[in-house]
Amino acid sequence: MTSDTPADTFSFTLSATDGAARTGFVSTPRGRIRTPAFMPVGTVATVKGLYFDQVKAAGADIVLGNTYHLMLRPGAERVAKLGGLHKFMRWDGPILTDSGGFQVMSLSSLRKMTEQGVTFRSHVDGAYHEMSPERSVEIQGLLGADIQMQLDECVRLPCTDEEAERAMRLSLRWAERSKRAFETQPKGRALFGIVQGGAVPALRVESARALADMDFPGYSIGGLAVGEPQEVMLAMIETVAPHLPTTKPRYLMGVGTPDDLLESVARGIDMFDCVMPTRSGRHALAFTRFGRINLKNARHAEDPRPLDEESDCPALRDYSRAYLHHLVRCEEMLGAMLISWANIHYYQQLMAGARAAIAAGRYADYVAETKAGWARGDLPLWEG
Amino acid sequence: MTSDTPADTFSFTLSATDGAARTGFVSTPRGRIRTPAFMPVGTVATVKGLYFDQVKAAGADIVLGNTYHLMLRPGAERVAKLGGLHKFMRWDGPILTDSGGFQVMSLSSLRKMTEQGVTFRSHVDGAYHEMSPERSVEIQGLLGADIQMQLDECVRLPCTDEEAERAMRLSLRWAERSKRAFETQPKGRALFGIVQGGAVPALRVESARALADMDFPGYSIGGLAVGEPQEVMLAMIETVAPHLPTTKPRYLMGVGTPDDLLESVARGIDMFDCVMPTRSGRHALAFTRFGRINLKNARHAEDPRPLDEESDCPALRDYSRAYLHHLVRCEEMLGAMLISWANIHYYQQLMAGARAAIAAGRYADYVAETKAGWARGDLPLWEG
Repeated sequence: MTSDTPADTFSFTLSATDGAARTGFVSTPRGRIRTPAFMPVGTVATVKGLYFDQVKAAGADIVLGNTYHLMLRPGAERVAKLGGLHKFMRWDGPILTDSGGFQVMSLSSLRKMTEQGVTFRSHVDGAYHEMSPERSVEIQGLLGADIQMQLDECVRLPCTDEEAERAMRLSLRWAERSKRAFETQPKGRALFGIVQGGAVPALRVESARALADMDFPGYSIGGLAVGEPQEVMLAMIETVAPHLPTTKPRYLMGVGTPDDLLESVARGIDMFDCVMPTRSGRHALAFTRFGRINLKNARHAEDPRPLDEESDCPALRDYSRAYLHHLVRCEEMLGAMLISWANIHYYQQLMAGARAAIAAGRYADYVAETKAGWARGDLPLWEG
Repeated sequence: MTSDTPADTFSFTLSATDGAARTGFVSTPRGRIRTPAFMPVGTVATVKGLYFDQVKAAGADIVLGNTYHLMLRPGAERVAKLGGLHKFMRWDGPILTDSGGFQVMSLSSLRKMTEQGVTFRSHVDGAYHEMSPERSVEIQGLLGADIQMQLDECVRLPCTDEEAERAMRLSLRWAERSKRAFETQPKGRALFGIVQGGAVPALRVESARALADMDFPGYSIGGLAVGEPQEVMLAMIETVAPHLPTTKPRYLMGVGTPDDLLESVARGIDMFDCVMPTRSGRHALAFTRFGRINLKNARHAEDPRPLDEESDCPALRDYSRAYLHHLVRCEEMLGAMLISWANIHYYQQLMAGARAAIAAGRYADYVAETKAGWARGDLPLWEG
């Protein structure tokens, strides 16, 4: 198969490793996902403030949709009737959906959890909904997601070991049910199992081994980046990774800062998603080669320099910090649009650099150089 | 001079007339403005929700900036320091600025009006500012506007004849002062006088004649579309137009609906500006060949059709009404972005059609056909 031939099955190819860091690609019928990959989040069928053309041009191979949000609005059956999520939102690359479980826990009210599943009230209109492993997979299938997630129970950290264990074991039973429910879906789609276990190494190991025995085409690590310090998260990755098959992609859910990404890639993670680039973009915070730049700050008011004059992204290259600052101060949409675009671009650039560095066997140098760039910081104009 | 040679002076060329309707172009050192022209409003140096590339591609030759907003944020001196408004907001075509007078009257507080000018408090931070005919022209010069407006006093309708007369005469004296203040500005820029006089025909005629005697390079009609019925506005245009030189462009300020534009062109107006396409875009209201479409309406929820499948604008052609409805319901930025873009495009398309029809001597037919399209309406799916 040449590199341009669409796959008819889901597969993962490792091209190179450098220490624990890996680079390669996931093949899907909708196209390849170069890894390590950052997946922009299109919560309700839009990556907030961006055109999908911009998302694609930034280098994203795949985007994420949120099952919880989409089941409430516009509704999975409606999306299916309209031809699926790809057509609905006009994105022809692969789409990954989460199971909805995380947002059910964090956004809905009046939740009632049983072995069977969870009933909850929508945060939008208060209507009752039911979510089970089977229904979650059904919804993700109606959306037409290329990569789907088992329903899991994600507990907030810190939590008791007993709570972490109960949720982990429930998630394993739900993994089995999700896998059975997924069997009727078209060939080429993939369902990932999700490792849980809180911050308890033994539980994490047990979860990873049990899921590996179930032979999923990919594995997610859930329940991290939920309030714990970065070192706890990294320790959990280090604990879990050796127990996951090297031949399958590993997805760290909901992570994170640029630094989180670099450190997690160093520990063997292949896929990420996070709202940070777009959420920060709406709050005037830009991520750049020179670290974070808060464009609300008055010192940008007369700065004619762009965020990064060497970037090939118009948002980073063509608009002065003075103009971005002005847009932010006036709460103009274009400010959020441009800074979100710049951030999505930077995250993709960061991952492209990681892929190249791993392939070249110099990932540690890449991390050091990148962090030195951040530490150099956002120099005031008179030093620039 | 070939059509591609930039003019070094400001001029107006009439290419064709059809009844009172006119088509031609305004030449400026920054490029030509095909007339009749609709100027998208870039209030604070951004056409809300659009990239300027989209504004240009929609067919706009010129955009408007609001002096009042820009003098408050980011400030005229700051814009000048950053290289002028064109560079600041990245629009290389002509820019027209208003005088700031209208917003001083409608947005600021604690106004004090004298013969000299007006002092007021900013609606943003409460700071005191002064505005005079000389200061308004100075600000517009600092911004680098290609077409500038005299400071005038715009009274709300209805008003007493005495109030209309007082404001009209003050505006004439300010026209003289604005003209003198403008003399130091670079060649190729133009200052327009503004016809006032409320809804009193005799006052409007007197104002138009007095301004014509002052020999401005263009004339604005102000103080309309401020609450009066359309027929009053159109009657005032009919009253004023014969007293303005045919050889100079006529700009109807702050107008209007697509119907207002067609009817005003029929009465000899060459230029328009209005926030309606973008403001409506942020409120889910699309202007199309088939009339207005309120995308909040639930009947669009499963409608796979785009707003106008024959359009060459992606916003009109590529996104389903179901998707636009969904974005609007979720209050997603992309909804406002797409509908504003579609509206800016439609307004430009409407004016392009008017120019072609006038050139072909069939403007009345064009108006009739366009209105028939609006009357055909936004057909439900089952009739489409």
